[in-house]
Amino acid sequence: MFEARLTQGKIFKQLIEALKDLVQDANIDCSEDELSIQAMDSSHVSLVQVNLQAGGFDHFRCDRTISLGFNSTNMSKILKCAGNDDVITLKAEDTADALTLMFESPGQDRIADFELKLMDIDAEPLGIPDTEYQCTIRMPSGEFQRIIRDLQVLGDTCVISCTKEGVRFSVSGDLGTGNVLLRNNAAEKEEDQVIIEMEEPVELTFALRYLNFFTKATSLGGSVILSMSPEVPVVVEYPIEEFGHIKYYLAPKIDDDA
Amino acid sequence: MFEARLTQGKIFKQLIEALKDLVQDANIDCSEDELSIQAMDSSHVSLVQVNLQAGGFDHFRCDRTISLGFNSTNMSKILKCAGNDDVITLKAEDTADALTLMFESPGQDRIADFELKLMDIDAEPLGIPDTEYQCTIRMPSGEFQRIIRDLQVLGDTCVISCTKEGVRFSVSGDLGTGNVLLRNNAAEKEEDQVIIEMEEPVELTFALRYLNFFTKATSLGGSVILSMSPEVPVVVEYPIEEFGHIKYYLAPKIDDDA
Amino acid sequence: MFEARLTQGKIFKQLIEALKDLVQDANIDCSEDELSIQAMDSSHVSLVQVNLQAGGFDHFRCDRTISLGFNSTNMSKILKCAGNDDVITLKAEDTADALTLMFESPGQDRIADFELKLMDIDAEPLGIPDTEYQCTIRMPSGEFQRIIRDLQVLGDTCVISCTKEGVRFSVSGDLGTGNVLLRNNAAEKEEDQVIIEMEEPVELTFALRYLNFFTKATSLGGSVILSMSPEVPVVVEYPIEEFGHIKYYLAPKIDDDA
Repeated sequence: MFEARLTQGKIFKQLIEALKDLVQDANIDCSEDELSIQAMDSSHVSLVQVNLQAGGFDHFRCDRTISLGFNSTNMSKILKCAGNDDVITLKAEDTADALTLMFESPGQDRIADFELKLMDIDAEPLGIPDTEYQCTIRMPSGEFQRIIRDLQVLGDTCVISCTKEGVRFSVSGDLGTGNVLLRNNAAEKEEDQVIIEMEEPVELTFALRYLNFFTKATSLGGSVILSMSPEVPVVVEYPIEEFGHIKYYLAPKIDDDA
Repeated sequence: MFEARLTQGKIFKQLIEALKDLVQDANIDCSEDELSIQAMDSSHVSLVQVNLQAGGFDHFRCDRTISLGFNSTNMSKILKCAGNDDVITLKAEDTADALTLMFESPGQDRIADFELKLMDIDAEPLGIPDTEYQCTIRMPSGEFQRIIRDLQVLGDTCVISCTKEGVRFSVSGDLGTGNVLLRNNAAEKEEDQVIIEMEEPVELTFALRYLNFFTKATSLGGSVILSMSPEVPVVVEYPIEEFGHIKYYLAPKIDDDA
Repeated sequence: MFEARLTQGKIFKQLIEALKDLVQDANIDCSEDELSIQAMDSSHVSLVQVNLQAGGFDHFRCDRTISLGFNSTNMSKILKCAGNDDVITLKAEDTADALTLMFESPGQDRIADFELKLMDIDAEPLGIPDTEYQCTIRMPSGEFQRIIRDLQVLGDTCVISCTKEGVRFSVSGDLGTGNVLLRNNAAEKEEDQVIIEMEEPVELTFALRYLNFFTKATSLGGSVILSMSPEVPVVVEYPIEEFGHIKYYLAPKIDDDA
């Protein structure tokens, strides 16, 4: 038996929104300690990893580890029926072929329950090793979203270069070229800060299309953290306060001329 | 000569919006006492009935009963030219082939007049007998709109079942199933109340497509009233304060297996 | 070397929006005194003329007159990357084949620079003679926009007739007819005023399609000024406070039956 109750049901809505354009089918893996989702996008170019600690739920019970395979479009359709202030409860029997989603309005006057049919998805979660990165950039998530959206006007690939001065996003295309520089900025409000921690400058090239998919997670929190080292995938992490995170991994483009 | 002046012109705008997706052509029937509109949708599945009492207008004069046949799409186009705060006046000569609509801005600085060509529509209004219903449900109109919109995600038909506990809307489809329960709720604000009056529990099945058309009237008032008895059409009524109402009638689906 | 810095960068964004649907390619002509743009629409029916005085910029330097040919769609795409509060700086070398646009966020934490490729456009600006008009109508720009948008519902051409009483916009079509009358109105707030100055009544007919293009400039200021005389193009001017204006010229339709 699995049951998880979340007063801030909005978080679960936002999480599914944050992966539904990237990932079609995925497992919700539940254990005693956490609820996690890991999946590659349909082109197998990027990976998304969600971890929500059991302690972040109001109630969390998982008698045995269970994998609940869902279609993200269908899950999203059902979650659209939950209000932003609703309490969301997820429930499944150990051998269930359906996930029950219950939405309770704040005053309990309105109670909705939905059953989403589940599917068998054959996917073994990858162990992702803890890595030290040469550069870590913390910046406002809205700013990151805007930069990625803006630069798509000019081209398909974006160079992210991180130095002590700041982080620069560059793009070049038929219309012309564009650069956006964010300076190191210890603003008063934590969410406005741009904090760069680095050992060595790093410059990597990425497909804007995927970075743009990642910014669907913007509503989950005020900050995003980019972790970069040469020749390894960037990690784009949206922390979810006192709860966990959603992380996206994307391999850099290799310059054929180098 | 017919002339009707309405300080709250917005109400007439909203009424036409509330029927234009359902009904193509209809008569405005004017008598000494009231302005009424009755029409079936183009598939002849549902009926809409508007009644506005003469006393609700600022000025109302109708020398002899008159039927003004209009196309609702064209009427709607012209009413889009009226501001929400405009005073609207309707005028027609007894033998007119056009309806004059006058829109005055609150400060009278802007006066617009439009002539809408009329058409002959051969339709005798049905007398609808007063009926006692086994269940009457008064609920917030916005809540009703949201439930109908939400449930359309899962299927085409909706079971509405009314018991003492509350009213339940259920739908079932390929993705799974969904239920929304509204409990009897004597909230302080009248518009938040869910008030169920019933003699016997009733359970009826309806096409969501039509219920959704009816919710176009949501802006006309805070409450909607559903009246149900077995095997007769449901009445979905939006009262218009101190003025009248718009009522929709829809026959239930008959379960062939029963 | 040309360089112009504008704290209210939004004005330049709005100007380009105000002409991009009408004009495809145009020159920015820079001299010591001003930045100007003049272009005809692609059907050569209307003319748009922008003048921004050097003194309206925070910094303006133009060593020699220079013409910078740009594609308005591409320019608009790049300007979408500027925030509404950004400072915008335009820069070009005397023999440049690209225009540099720099966008600085208010706190200077975010600096974006874009290079837009330029093109050679062979166009000699027309000298437009100063003309006395029989009627000049100053009215709220939002009201003008609304009237033009509303009347398009009924037809393609609009008669503008100006008398002492006020200004009347009339249209006639298959649905019926429409008239909007704005009365002379010395409202307290300058932006609400309708001020008509006239020697003789004037009545002219125009294509609504072009008037509608002109209203894209509405966000540039609270007022619009229409100047009309018989048989000459109307001027639709949006003044930009302490800076200059955007003016549109459109020839009246000639009534063949007259």
